[in-house]
Amino acid sequence: MTKRKPRSLKTGLPPGALIHVGERKTEQPYVTLVEYGPEKLTEHRFASVHDSRDHRPSQPVLWLNVYGLHEPEVLTEIGRRFNLHPLVLEDILNTDQRPKVDDYGDYLYLVACFFTYDSEHLSVSSEQVSLIIGQGFVLSFQERPTGNFDPVRERLRQNGGQIRKLGADYLAYALLDILVDRHFTVLEQIADRTEALEDELMGNVSPAMLQTLHQLKRDTLILRRAVWPLREVVNQLIRSGGPFFQPATQPYLRDIYDHTVHVIESLEAIRDLLAGMLDLYLSSVSNRLNQEVRALTVVAVIFMPATLISGIFGMNFRTMPLLDNPEGFLVALGMMAFIATTLGLTFWRRRWLG
Amino acid sequence: MTKRKPRSLKTGLPPGALIHVGERKTEQPYVTLVEYGPEKLTEHRFASVHDSRDHRPSQPVLWLNVYGLHEPEVLTEIGRRFNLHPLVLEDILNTDQRPKVDDYGDYLYLVACFFTYDSEHLSVSSEQVSLIIGQGFVLSFQERPTGNFDPVRERLRQNGGQIRKLGADYLAYALLDILVDRHFTVLEQIADRTEALEDELMGNVSPAMLQTLHQLKRDTLILRRAVWPLREVVNQLIRSGGPFFQPATQPYLRDIYDHTVHVIESLEAIRDLLAGMLDLYLSSVSNRLNQEVRALTVVAVIFMPATLISGIFGMNFRTMPLLDNPEGFLVALGMMAFIATTLGLTFWRRRWLG
Amino acid sequence: MTKRKPRSLKTGLPPGALIHVGERKTEQPYVTLVEYGPEKLTEHRFASVHDSRDHRPSQPVLWLNVYGLHEPEVLTEIGRRFNLHPLVLEDILNTDQRPKVDDYGDYLYLVACFFTYDSEHLSVSSEQVSLIIGQGFVLSFQERPTGNFDPVRERLRQNGGQIRKLGADYLAYALLDILVDRHFTVLEQIADRTEALEDELMGNVSPAMLQTLHQLKRDTLILRRAVWPLREVVNQLIRSGGPFFQPATQPYLRDIYDHTVHVIESLEAIRDLLAGMLDLYLSSVSNRLNQEVRALTVVAVIFMPATLISGIFGMNFRTMPLLDNPEGFLVALGMMAFIATTLGLTFWRRRWLG
Amino acid sequence: MTKRKPRSLKTGLPPGALIHVGERKTEQPYVTLVEYGPEKLTEHRFASVHDSRDHRPSQPVLWLNVYGLHEPEVLTEIGRRFNLHPLVLEDILNTDQRPKVDDYGDYLYLVACFFTYDSEHLSVSSEQVSLIIGQGFVLSFQERPTGNFDPVRERLRQNGGQIRKLGADYLAYALLDILVDRHFTVLEQIADRTEALEDELMGNVSPAMLQTLHQLKRDTLILRRAVWPLREVVNQLIRSGGPFFQPATQPYLRDIYDHTVHVIESLEAIRDLLAGMLDLYLSSVSNRLNQEVRALTVVAVIFMPATLISGIFGMNFRTMPLLDNPEGFLVALGMMAFIATTLGLTFWRRRWLG
Amino acid sequence: MTKRKPRSLKTGLPPGALIHVGERKTEQPYVTLVEYGPEKLTEHRFASVHDSRDHRPSQPVLWLNVYGLHEPEVLTEIGRRFNLHPLVLEDILNTDQRPKVDDYGDYLYLVACFFTYDSEHLSVSSEQVSLIIGQGFVLSFQERPTGNFDPVRERLRQNGGQIRKLGADYLAYALLDILVDRHFTVLEQIADRTEALEDELMGNVSPAMLQTLHQLKRDTLILRRAVWPLREVVNQLIRSGGPFFQPATQPYLRDIYDHTVHVIESLEAIRDLLAGMLDLYLSSVSNRLNQEVRALTVVAVIFMPATLISGIFGMNFRTMPLLDNPEGFLVALGMMAFIATTLGLTFWRRRWLG
Repeated sequence: MTKRKPRSLKTGLPPGALIHVGERKTEQPYVTLVEYGPEKLTEHRFASVHDSRDHRPSQPVLWLNVYGLHEPEVLTEIGRRFNLHPLVLEDILNTDQRPKVDDYGDYLYLVACFFTYDSEHLSVSSEQVSLIIGQGFVLSFQERPTGNFDPVRERLRQNGGQIRKLGADYLAYALLDILVDRHFTVLEQIADRTEALEDELMGNVSPAMLQTLHQLKRDTLILRRAVWPLREVVNQLIRSGGPFFQPATQPYLRDIYDHTVHVIESLEAIRDLLAGMLDLYLSSVSNRLNQEVRALTVVAVIFMPATLISGIFGMNFRTMPLLDNPEGFLVALGMMAFIATTLGLTFWRRRWLG
Repeated sequence: MTKRKPRSLKTGLPPGALIHVGERKTEQPYVTLVEYGPEKLTEHRFASVHDSRDHRPSQPVLWLNVYGLHEPEVLTEIGRRFNLHPLVLEDILNTDQRPKVDDYGDYLYLVACFFTYDSEHLSVSSEQVSLIIGQGFVLSFQERPTGNFDPVRERLRQNGGQIRKLGADYLAYALLDILVDRHFTVLEQIADRTEALEDELMGNVSPAMLQTLHQLKRDTLILRRAVWPLREVVNQLIRSGGPFFQPATQPYLRDIYDHTVHVIESLEAIRDLLAGMLDLYLSSVSNRLNQEVRALTVVAVIFMPATLISGIFGMNFRTMPLLDNPEGFLVALGMMAFIATTLGLTFWRRRWLG
Repeated sequence: MTKRKPRSLKTGLPPGALIHVGERKTEQPYVTLVEYGPEKLTEHRFASVHDSRDHRPSQPVLWLNVYGLHEPEVLTEIGRRFNLHPLVLEDILNTDQRPKVDDYGDYLYLVACFFTYDSEHLSVSSEQVSLIIGQGFVLSFQERPTGNFDPVRERLRQNGGQIRKLGADYLAYALLDILVDRHFTVLEQIADRTEALEDELMGNVSPAMLQTLHQLKRDTLILRRAVWPLREVVNQLIRSGGPFFQPATQPYLRDIYDHTVHVIESLEAIRDLLAGMLDLYLSSVSNRLNQEVRALTVVAVIFMPATLISGIFGMNFRTMPLLDNPEGFLVALGMMAFIATTLGLTFWRRRWLG
Repeated sequence: MTKRKPRSLKTGLPPGALIHVGERKTEQPYVTLVEYGPEKLTEHRFASVHDSRDHRPSQPVLWLNVYGLHEPEVLTEIGRRFNLHPLVLEDILNTDQRPKVDDYGDYLYLVACFFTYDSEHLSVSSEQVSLIIGQGFVLSFQERPTGNFDPVRERLRQNGGQIRKLGADYLAYALLDILVDRHFTVLEQIADRTEALEDELMGNVSPAMLQTLHQLKRDTLILRRAVWPLREVVNQLIRSGGPFFQPATQPYLRDIYDHTVHVIESLEAIRDLLAGMLDLYLSSVSNRLNQEVRALTVVAVIFMPATLISGIFGMNFRTMPLLDNPEGFLVALGMMAFIATTLGLTFWRRRWLG
Repeated sequence: MTKRKPRSLKTGLPPGALIHVGERKTEQPYVTLVEYGPEKLTEHRFASVHDSRDHRPSQPVLWLNVYGLHEPEVLTEIGRRFNLHPLVLEDILNTDQRPKVDDYGDYLYLVACFFTYDSEHLSVSSEQVSLIIGQGFVLSFQERPTGNFDPVRERLRQNGGQIRKLGADYLAYALLDILVDRHFTVLEQIADRTEALEDELMGNVSPAMLQTLHQLKRDTLILRRAVWPLREVVNQLIRSGGPFFQPATQPYLRDIYDHTVHVIESLEAIRDLLAGMLDLYLSSVSNRLNQEVRALTVVAVIFMPATLISGIFGMNFRTMPLLDNPEGFLVALGMMAFIATTLGLTFWRRRWLG
């Protein structure tokens, strides 16, 4: 459950009110710009939007990336130049969006999340990424510079594969591909922790394991809330991304779609496993209770009859058998041992047969 | 579960019978009227419907708001002027409607709820709102004056944003937007309470926490019953609100739709969390039982053998070893300590290994 | 679970075999006939079908109601006059039908149930009602005279509202409306009992409450089996009741549809609540077990060490400290109290911290 | 779970390999042949397929029934004459089919099961029936002669109802009707056993009841696996049985469909009930545990303090109060009684209030 | 849960990067080639792709099978000759695919798994198989030579059935048929183990059974994740395998489809059974706890009162009754026996009645 608080602060405000909703205002926001074609690639970095005012695009594909969302005026300026709907700008700033894609006619607005897993505290954190996919341009908005998109940047620079020959839709695919694949990283960490926990549960259980189990469940819940709509996003791109995605890019989208389904199924399998592990835990606790009650019974069965016998021979009746017999003491001890053994055996057998 | 009682009182009555079904008859009902266009805005307030009889609308958009539903004659009069179907009037008075939208050809009838959360008693209360959306007019009906719609009223007055330039459909959207966003407020309060409870459960559990858990579950149930149909309402407006909602308003409706989906998913996540917390609670109770039985066993293991030994040396046999030995007493105490320790260790080990 | 027995008796019989399947054969069956138009209304009552042989209908709308189904010949005669399919007659007699509507071209056959709740024995009983809706006529078949349809009969007589002006479809709607609304009555009784039980569970639990819980669950199961298909019935009337229901009646059907959805959601909410209450019950039982074990441990912790000390000073060693000391007795008592207190505190603390 | 073993033996064999998969090879297979029209009916019985070689059909409708499936050559011959697909023949012999209907253009292949319930061992057994429905002929294949179809045979002979006047599709319906109705018989037996068990659970529980519960669950599972696809089969006949089922037979199919839905709903209701009964059982076990622990506590509370007092007055201190007092003994007994009573009352009250 | 690790290593790589993802690099990969028509069949085996360079196909149907996937250059060469999409090659090497079929226009790419069950360690292992189905050719890729497809190879050689007369689509069906049928083998082993466990649970339970239960659940989870998408694969072949599958092959595909549904239903039935068995296990544990507490209570009830009596007569009061009475001792023993018996009976009865 990421922080939801600030949502309610916006109740009643007009739509398009550009207020940054989110907790992690990091550094100074900045903008990078990559333009490329099969032949050429140029890169720019602007510390403010004003710096970029005189820039004129010269290549077929333009990729503008914004790091840091807490200065609404950057967004306002970009929104003005690319003619973006006020609701899009509002959604970019609102960093608790669920993954979705909206078709605004001239461009697609797509929002999703990069997940990071802190395997020590077993907590999932996420960072929202917005993509605007238009004819010949892709705009990406991230909360802070994380280097997540660096592999694509590198492939563009090195002109590796066919990425420079294909259009903005292929670039969008490449970014989305990284985004989806990042889910695997988190999922694998959760799966490893889950399997480690399973092994621990096979041994001796402790309440701490239950906490871990609960925490892992929460993690899968968070991931699940993001992945199911993400699948729908990709599905929608395949079905109706028509004007923006060329037929040649379709197999790649289908490939991403398969990946999201793969993530979902692994996630559900982990969840099923966790559910089964709770049963394991609870019955381990029950079993241990049985053992403890049994231990108590054993103690009672051995010592209570013996204590009674000692009590009997400690009574102060004048006439009592055995008391004057030199072997009396040993006889009494023998009676104690005999009764305890007999009773112990009896209960043992009845319990095993019951 | 809001009060359902009065429903059954209406069995067999003809449809359109205007009987107020609901518990909170508040003050004297009154009617406010806002008319506006891009240029001008006029406001009126009528204590009774008769006062408004001579009023003639003069602006493109008319917004009539009614506070208080317990005087059916107000509704009858409004129904007559705006030509409303008897079933609509019946539904407005019937304050336990589930959210829905009905298309009556000349207007849409929409009903939903404002929720309020009492975080002390963990109880959700709701107030029904009916909207009638026609060409150039919006009628809204509330159970009592709560000021929920004041932000819109304010934006209209201040001519902020584009609200005065757009038509009645945008006004309807703005009202609906507030309505949906109010769910976030309640949801966040429930989520906060849930997370607080989760932290408490990590410590020592008490039956009161179970009551809280149960109460939170009930709250989510109530909210859920309202939000799922609300999503359907918005979805229906998008799909078939055709004649009443202009294309330019569509993205705004889609935005509300996203919000309802967001509410639903957060709600389901809270419900999943609550389900997991019940497991936490139950196994905490089990764990504590184990600890108590263990404590009991420890006591028995330490004292029963020692008691037996004291009993043995308290027997009245004439011939018993050690009794005359000056160190006898200490030997007996040593035996007690030795046996208790040995037994204790044995059970300890078996329980830890078992 | 209503009695299902007789069903299997019909295996292998030809379809349309008119055997009354049901338990409650009441009195002598009789037939009432109401004919009406905007101007006029006539009523007849026939003790047997033969009596009605010479009757000729004279008004636009005809409503024939049959009480008592155990004389198949009544049905045969009606079937012959209104040209009913043998399967329809079979279904009317078969009083464990699930709600459904079948379109036989010339008429619709609709079957549903009136429910009654015995809130003392927490049991739901039902009575089957069959409606045949044709052009200008409605036939209704009930198992016994219960007066369920009396409000409609009264409205017809008093010419209240518009019922006399509208056709047979509106009459069918009015009957169906009563039928659906009766579910609310039963539901509210179950809901009241459920909430009462919930309050009881907050106090001290007893096995009898579990019985009540189980019984309430059964009741909701029975109701649920009836309401889900009933919703489908109404939905089907709306979608394809075309030739029989005029457009003007559509809003009324939609209204009934909303009511069935309302019943379903309330029912599911009650079921969710009952499921949560079982958890409440079970953990109350667990909590009490903990308390009892704790009580036992307290007793053991206080008395076992003291008993040991008394045993020690009851040993017969010749040389023992304190025995000859005049304060010896008080010292021994002091030791008992001290050890019991110390031990008690220790376990107390460990259990609270554990 | 019927025996699934032989399935895997067929891995890798070519399709249409005629190997009988099933356990119950009964007697000598034989074939009966009924031909009829409105006027005439002839019956034949052949001990082998060779006997029937010279037979020429002479009536509009032909019904061939085969008992016993373990001689593949019988099937091969029939398959050759009626031009059946090899996969059909393979499916007929494979007696663990799930209910299905396949359209092979010239005929429909339908397979389903007759169920029998052994209410003593609570076990469901089944026998597969295959129907081939063509223009003017119905072929039926049963594992052994059980007389299940005798009522239809009898109606054909006695020319009762309209069965002789209608075609092969009505015959197919009549056979299917018996098949579906047989499910009611089994279901009613399971329902009776379930209700009997419910009554038993209201009294004192025993582990044997849990076994019964588990067995009943298994039975419903088996039935369920058969009935859900059966509903689909009937549904498919209604929707696309076009060339084989005449419009006049449609209402009859719809009637069967209603029956399958009825069976499914009763089955699911029983399953819900069984799930609730497990909760009843488990909490009865918990309740009893509470009672036992309470009994133990009562014993401890009464006897431990008294034992301590007796121990105290058994100590060998020289100076002790009361010992020389003639009422000392009674005072000691009084103290015992007083402390036990006080403690007992205290715990009693605390437990009832806790 | 097969190993998922290497997935995340591919994040950010361009699509089509041929890296073998999987653990079991076995021997030297090799390629077999079968070409056939109704008349003739030739077989080749190549140790490397270079050897096959000069080979020219001469028969209507070509089946190329590759064993071993760890040498990407083999795939690159085959991909070049058959004009395969880079994503297909990537998927073939990626051995943790979920079953799917992709239509690449010129060919279908299908991927699924052969399962093997280790019934000793209760673990499911799988081996990925990729099929490429084109006009006149089928390519199959396996991780290692297992002989799974040998029955088809044999049928081809012996010209058995009609396999040589039909085209590549029938060959694809034959391979798929073996693949689906292999699921039955695994399923039957799991079912046998499940039923064996069920019998064990009817006797005395041990924690090891819970482990087995958990393991069986995991196995069904793994199988389930493979079979549900496999059903979709076959369904897709039936619905839209159009250009590749001739109408005559359709019934065979439908037959495979039925088999996958059969596998799914058996699997779900086993899962339901396993869920029920967990309840059995848990209530057995509870029942045993009850028995143990009862045993403890019995011991306490018998010995505590007796011990008290012995303590009473061990007190040192000067004036006590019975002490001087020669029968005093026996009277005391009698009192012990009497009280123990009475108390025992009382608790017994109360517990049975409670």
